[in-house]
Amino acid sequence: MVGSVGNGLMDLGEKVEPLPEEFDPKEIVEPLPTESNGVGGEEGSGKRREIVLGRNVHTMCFTIKEPDADDEETGEREAYMASVLARYRKSLIERTKHHLGYPYNLDFDYGALAQLQHFSINNLGDPFIESNYGVHSRQFEVGVLDWFARLWELEKNEYWGYITNCGTEGNLHGILVGREVFPDGILYASRESHYSVFKAARMYRMECIKVGTLVSGEIDCADFGAKLLQNKDKPAIINVNIGTTVKGAVDDLDLVIKTLEDSGFRDRFYIHCDGALFGLMMPFVKRAPKVTFKKPIGSVSVSGHKFVGCPMPCGVQILRLNHVNALSRNVEYLASRDATIMGSRNGHAPIFLWYTLNRKGYRGFQKEVQKCLRNAHYLKDRLKEAGIGAMLNELSSTVVFERPRDEEFVRRWQLACQGSIAHVVVMPSVSIEKLDSFLNELVEKRATWYGDGKGRPQCIASDIGDENCLCGFHKN
Amino acid sequence: MVGSVGNGLMDLGEKVEPLPEEFDPKEIVEPLPTESNGVGGEEGSGKRREIVLGRNVHTMCFTIKEPDADDEETGEREAYMASVLARYRKSLIERTKHHLGYPYNLDFDYGALAQLQHFSINNLGDPFIESNYGVHSRQFEVGVLDWFARLWELEKNEYWGYITNCGTEGNLHGILVGREVFPDGILYASRESHYSVFKAARMYRMECIKVGTLVSGEIDCADFGAKLLQNKDKPAIINVNIGTTVKGAVDDLDLVIKTLEDSGFRDRFYIHCDGALFGLMMPFVKRAPKVTFKKPIGSVSVSGHKFVGCPMPCGVQILRLNHVNALSRNVEYLASRDATIMGSRNGHAPIFLWYTLNRKGYRGFQKEVQKCLRNAHYLKDRLKEAGIGAMLNELSSTVVFERPRDEEFVRRWQLACQGSIAHVVVMPSVSIEKLDSFLNELVEKRATWYGDGKGRPQCIASDIGDENCLCGFHKN
Repeated sequence: MVGSVGNGLMDLGEKVEPLPEEFDPKEIVEPLPTESNGVGGEEGSGKRREIVLGRNVHTMCFTIKEPDADDEETGEREAYMASVLARYRKSLIERTKHHLGYPYNLDFDYGALAQLQHFSINNLGDPFIESNYGVHSRQFEVGVLDWFARLWELEKNEYWGYITNCGTEGNLHGILVGREVFPDGILYASRESHYSVFKAARMYRMECIKVGTLVSGEIDCADFGAKLLQNKDKPAIINVNIGTTVKGAVDDLDLVIKTLEDSGFRDRFYIHCDGALFGLMMPFVKRAPKVTFKKPIGSVSVSGHKFVGCPMPCGVQILRLNHVNALSRNVEYLASRDATIMGSRNGHAPIFLWYTLNRKGYRGFQKEVQKCLRNAHYLKDRLKEAGIGAMLNELSSTVVFERPRDEEFVRRWQLACQGSIAHVVVMPSVSIEKLDSFLNELVEKRATWYGDGKGRPQCIASDIGDENCLCGFHKN
Repeated sequence: MVGSVGNGLMDLGEKVEPLPEEFDPKEIVEPLPTESNGVGGEEGSGKRREIVLGRNVHTMCFTIKEPDADDEETGEREAYMASVLARYRKSLIERTKHHLGYPYNLDFDYGALAQLQHFSINNLGDPFIESNYGVHSRQFEVGVLDWFARLWELEKNEYWGYITNCGTEGNLHGILVGREVFPDGILYASRESHYSVFKAARMYRMECIKVGTLVSGEIDCADFGAKLLQNKDKPAIINVNIGTTVKGAVDDLDLVIKTLEDSGFRDRFYIHCDGALFGLMMPFVKRAPKVTFKKPIGSVSVSGHKFVGCPMPCGVQILRLNHVNALSRNVEYLASRDATIMGSRNGHAPIFLWYTLNRKGYRGFQKEVQKCLRNAHYLKDRLKEAGIGAMLNELSSTVVFERPRDEEFVRRWQLACQGSIAHVVVMPSVSIEKLDSFLNELVEKRATWYGDGKGRPQCIASDIGDENCLCGFHKN
């Protein structure tokens, strides 16, 4: 964090992403304000971007111009907009092709649904109660919810849920339900939990205790147990990660429950499962511990734009029906009650999900999960063969490895990084060919970073374990 | 509220919306569970639906079926899905045609953007800071934000903002920023504020004081001042309605500020303006008091799917840059900081907004606002001519009138109702022809409800004022 910048002027610790070549910056991109000279770091250097609060940087911006009076006759406006969109589309194709770091399945075809883009579809409030607003897609939404409730073994008449805007909304919702069930409960979450969990604690003014993790990224239940014993007087609300964001680690749900029971918490706990990505993959992995409502969990959330693939972020939230009353209230205006976070909800997302689930079915997902796990193993093995330290958790398709030294390379492949490590999340849209192309480029670049005694790769044993690190010290 | 239904069985105080005729319920709709006999109220009766918590009703649901092994060869699955979608589309056309009650502009043509539906566009985190995820639309988002900042007179380098998922997210964000600026502040909001304001207070564990309203729906500043004086020791966070949900009433921002100052609050207050609908209309209404950051306000939110029109809910949030630091924190994982509520954000919505703003410009919106106000006056006048009590606030296009007695009629025209009143929100998609068709049907039906001494319309003077009510007692 580089000081405070309350006056809104730009603070320049940051390198700015270069524009894709298709764009003509002179025509449509606003120039950097004059204060912004001396931007740190040259192109392609190893310098990391720093994140600065309180900024308002206009590096890339398609300015909206007031139409001229004669625009309609000349057609210039339409032509201008069409050209911006065409170039933008080209850049999207290129960016989609080189994407590896985020757990989004970019491989989908929703052409059949283009006919619906013309409608303002809004699922206000509760999916199970008709609102007076008729342009909705509850029929599809409830179909999708049923599918997930079945996947996680909760009876149709015992669940409640809704399609959210993203994984964050799912976590916000699950933790809020937990707090309403146990108003004085303490929130426990491993330190590798998604940042939205800690955001929730702050928003909701909940006491929050961070629990340590193992090298794999899983919650350390010894530490968890010790912290529970120090706070026996208050109920526990626990976020369990079904796939952590960075390492794809799956918390051991059974051990979490056992730890709670051994610490005397019996029925004074609420478990929310953040299954953003693996919540949908796990059920199809043999030998994986089961996420199921037959165990004493309260809610599960999963993202719809990740493994399923969807043009916009969305998610699925399933919880026990008897808990939702803690949250909901009457809202006559909508002729609906409101137990959601958002109220107005995107009605297109449920149709996208319904379409894919219907086409692929449980069997289709199973096949895709198997393919992802196979490809992830391939990537990890090839990295190690090339002398690059890498880790792949058993139930995961997230391959963690040393952070590439060149930030331009990181951005080109859109890798997500944290500290000294980066990761690739192998999704159905990530083929062996794409991985090969990435690997070849990495190996080639790496020779220029570390060849000729220019330095050595950093040790990342503390991140991925001694047995996975291949730095100078650990490779022997 | 009809008791608690913790066991998930259906509780049957509610009438269920009939399926549109295009649907063949036998084929694709799940039947009502057998517990659901004796649904209250016959078709078309005047009975109001009651809202029951803890329900899970599967009245309309397109079940997702596991594909058969030979589905790919027979093509049956594809045919089934195509037929569901075609019928759904037909029902959307019909529902869109008969829509009057919600403030959504359903008149838009985004055909030029269909080419982008194929991409998973996600604006993670802060709009002004590049994330490593390349498939985003920040260039469009920042263009839209600039346009709104200019509309509300906040300098480009002094604002921060983002495109939200809906008006609710805007209110959640504005109130959260207020709370972070004044952690022990009390939230004040008129009782006619949108329900999301009170939801926020509960979520954020804030003390919340409801302020009375005038008949128009505006906040009653006498009551506000009295309540401020009783709580002088704590800062004030105020939600100001730029158009209330039900009556379209605009709180008098200047009077709110004066009341705060007269009560000795000087700089110990934060004002959030909920401009869900009128935030975008007001600037184009002559004589309307100005919403501007030249006054001591902290944030403004407006919905994108309302006056602008958009296939999915979205909104715009603009606030002062120096306030956002209270909220944000570093999140290395995204190479972005997170001062939003949602984290992952729909990247298509900014492009829809950018497209419309660019095409219409300030002048185009001005014309549409004028048309809406004209048509709203037409509707109010014709209602009164027909002997139906009605009210239209001066700066508003929301016409409030007696609640139609027949719930089927209410649902057919998708009217939003509260207590004894209903409203129509005149949007650009609501033409004189549509209003005439609605009026003719209402007048005709009304004769059957109240003709031949069958009873009288209810008095609604307490909702819309003596001078607007046309019940037996007030019409003389």
